[in-house]
Amino acid sequence: SELSGTDPDTIARTTFVAEADKLKNIVRATTLCDASRFENSAEHSWHLALYALTLAEHAPEGVSSFRVIRMLLLHDLVEIDAGDAPIYAQTEASQAAMADLEEAAAARLFGLLPTEQGAALNALWHEFEGSQTPDARFAKALDRFQPPMQNIASKGVSWRSHNVTYEMVDARVGAAVRRSVPELWAHVSPKIAALLS
Amino acid sequence: SELSGTDPDTIARTTFVAEADKLKNIVRATTLCDASRFENSAEHSWHLALYALTLAEHAPEGVSSFRVIRMLLLHDLVEIDAGDAPIYAQTEASQAAMADLEEAAAARLFGLLPTEQGAALNALWHEFEGSQTPDARFAKALDRFQPPMQNIASKGVSWRSHNVTYEMVDARVGAAVRRSVPELWAHVSPKIAALLS
Ligand SMILES: [Ca+2]
Repeated sequence: SELSGTDPDTIARTTFVAEADKLKNIVRATTLCDASRFENSAEHSWHLALYALTLAEHAPEGVSSFRVIRMLLLHDLVEIDAGDAPIYAQTEASQAAMADLEEAAAARLFGLLPTEQGAALNALWHEFEGSQTPDARFAKALDRFQPPMQNIASKGVSWRSHNVTYEMVDARVGAAVRRSVPELWAHVSPKIAALLS
Repeated sequence: SELSGTDPDTIARTTFVAEADKLKNIVRATTLCDASRFENSAEHSWHLALYALTLAEHAPEGVSSFRVIRMLLLHDLVEIDAGDAPIYAQTEASQAAMADLEEAAAARLFGLLPTEQGAALNALWHEFEGSQTPDARFAKALDRFQPPMQNIASKGVSWRSHNVTYEMVDARVGAAVRRSVPELWAHVSPKIAALLS
């Protein structure tokens, strides 16, 4: 390779991945399957990328597994500055405030990278957030599908602490899963109903 | 999709990803960059996949970023049964015993998946372990490159607790990084020398 150890792009990229380490300190509202502790956003992002790899055959026609996995690896990085907003605690006002914080976080974090690369990853994050393309909808569906899977394993420990009902899960989570991968919702919804009804 | 919620492949894949959750409980010998705690193998796997995504331009000609990322997402799953073996505590005898444990772990874990898919992922894990293909060597190089990055940030906290010397890092870690991505070793080796000399 022509790149040396002191190449500015090498320095920018290694600075970015070292900064990304902070995602391991962002604690989510969902526990591990064994309920031993809350999950952090870095291991959650790994888990989602593994979901995408494992469940690729369930993706709608034309979805690129590679783009979905890249989206999922990046999707929570903004939480390093903005924190995690538990889905059952969100209001319209809190979502708008969070969107501004996340936008600034994306500018700062992806701005650590070489310009073109940072712009490309920032665009991929915006695509995920926008949830309009088939790739983004599949990625978002997995992001919504994994917490119910964790709750089913832990007998709903994190749901109970937020007084979550079946109707809340169906509205805030089910809709996004069904829209992209109806059979995954068909798989978990009876188990969720059994836990929360 | 033709797949229903009770399709055997859906059940097999969701069982696999739920079992994979246990990787979040496997604690490594390396700390977070801020030295606040030891890193676990799930968040480490996320971090490596992000390294692969970020440093794709540093990969040797012909390396597939997508295959490398899939390898890195899977590479530590066997630790769920076999545990993590800190690199500076390994001997030839401990490595041979570990290889048997990991082989059995791979058979059990990938065996949870539909047959063909499980065989493909098991083969990808073996390719990583074998470290013979350009994809595997780049993946292995990143797996060796990230712990020094963590140690540089934490001022060598986990190295000091294992009495690690520059020569040990160079032999056990440097060789694998240099073989695939010499400029990444050129980037970190002076910082490692400054910490350990
Ligand atoms: Ca999130």
